[in-house]
Amino acid sequence: MSRSYKISIIGSGRVALHLSRALEDAGHQIVEVYSRNIGNATKVTERLYGAKPVNSLDFSFSKSKVFFIAVADDALSDIAGRIILPENAIVAHTSGTGGLAVLHKFPFSGVFYPLQTFSKQRKISFTTIPLCLESDNKEALRVLKEIGNSISKSIYFLNSEKRKSLHLAAVFASNFTNRMLAISKEILEGQGIDYGILDALVSETVNKALEGDPKVMQTGPAARKDFKVMKEHLKLLENKAEWKNIYKVISEDIANNS
Amino acid sequence: MSRSYKISIIGSGRVALHLSRALEDAGHQIVEVYSRNIGNATKVTERLYGAKPVNSLDFSFSKSKVFFIAVADDALSDIAGRIILPENAIVAHTSGTGGLAVLHKFPFSGVFYPLQTFSKQRKISFTTIPLCLESDNKEALRVLKEIGNSISKSIYFLNSEKRKSLHLAAVFASNFTNRMLAISKEILEGQGIDYGILDALVSETVNKALEGDPKVMQTGPAARKDFKVMKEHLKLLENKAEWKNIYKVISEDIANNS
Repeated sequence: MSRSYKISIIGSGRVALHLSRALEDAGHQIVEVYSRNIGNATKVTERLYGAKPVNSLDFSFSKSKVFFIAVADDALSDIAGRIILPENAIVAHTSGTGGLAVLHKFPFSGVFYPLQTFSKQRKISFTTIPLCLESDNKEALRVLKEIGNSISKSIYFLNSEKRKSLHLAAVFASNFTNRMLAISKEILEGQGIDYGILDALVSETVNKALEGDPKVMQTGPAARKDFKVMKEHLKLLENKAEWKNIYKVISEDIANNS
Repeated sequence: MSRSYKISIIGSGRVALHLSRALEDAGHQIVEVYSRNIGNATKVTERLYGAKPVNSLDFSFSKSKVFFIAVADDALSDIAGRIILPENAIVAHTSGTGGLAVLHKFPFSGVFYPLQTFSKQRKISFTTIPLCLESDNKEALRVLKEIGNSISKSIYFLNSEKRKSLHLAAVFASNFTNRMLAISKEILEGQGIDYGILDALVSETVNKALEGDPKVMQTGPAARKDFKVMKEHLKLLENKAEWKNIYKVISEDIANNS
């Protein structure tokens, strides 16, 4: 068992919820959970052992050593500007796009970005989640690494520039992939076909693409430049201008790279 | 054990290869494998027990009862026009987009479309692959269903119109998803980041999207209309016009549906 830290969580969203649970499971003590809205903070502390919900950013008297800021990207700099921390506290945000610089006024600051998609109602094991760490302070990095190792087997050290590219890659791999599946579900439902018909296909596609090189694995009408089939597909999308557009630009990109 | 049929396979591509193997494993006898190029037919028969490679479409004297046409969509009508079958033979094509009508001159014709992505070098279990059947001939449909049941637990009856929509949905769910992963891999490699960092994220994304409703599960900058992050991402794609375009159209579609 590694050292146990006293930790406060700023934020009450999905990352805050899952991270606080994982930290507690690893033996750390969650002291406080902050949300502007105390009710939201309570929704997180309810699922923890001894954490206190708070709605003030003044942590001058907090017993915590480490503060994780897990808020929406567009709230990050505002929170960073207003939060008051105890002396020598270590503070890290969990954002993929937020730079290290947003915490520049704190001497012991860093980034602790878990690369995963979190849902409120799905339990998730942190063990395999890549944690991307960054700090230009040696002591902060040491502690973040220690905490990281206590919850995950997969620690990466990435500077802000690389982390931004990683986040962009994750948008394609996760958010956009999810949208492709949402579109296919709607197409099927429009025809009264069970969405579950895609299970085996999607699983095999993704296993293949993760084990090998998806560029080489590319199949489908665009990859074989089968313009007749693509034309028929575009016709089926006639009343769906946005999907037609998506179909076109991705097919063009596939055809140009096959 | 169900009845064993004598079957010939027209085509030597991935579907032909995997289907012939699955049929043989289920106790059917593959009599012939056709390819215009006899060497390609041999590559398939080499992996089977007693099948003969042939490069003629005259099957007048074939002992087969059932013929599967598993060729590229754009070769289908040409093959259907030239093939000569024994009397009372049952013939089905395996295409997602080809209609039933392409085989109209044969009395016992149908469609036998396996919804999966096949690779030359990956063994795949047919048991979970949805087989989409269609025929307007009762006897042909009975035999195709019997053969279908011998290799898969998942049989669907879809007319040509529904099958076309299914194929379109599969392009989004499989081909486009694969392209999203290929793009993310290239972005990561450009930064020297290991592509394996995406494994846990992609697996969770896809499990979630298949178990639940991907539209509801949508996360990411576009879903929360975080224009600052999207602008930064577009800047990172400045030298990649096609990907920038893909990013834009999918993000717009997500934002409009979140």
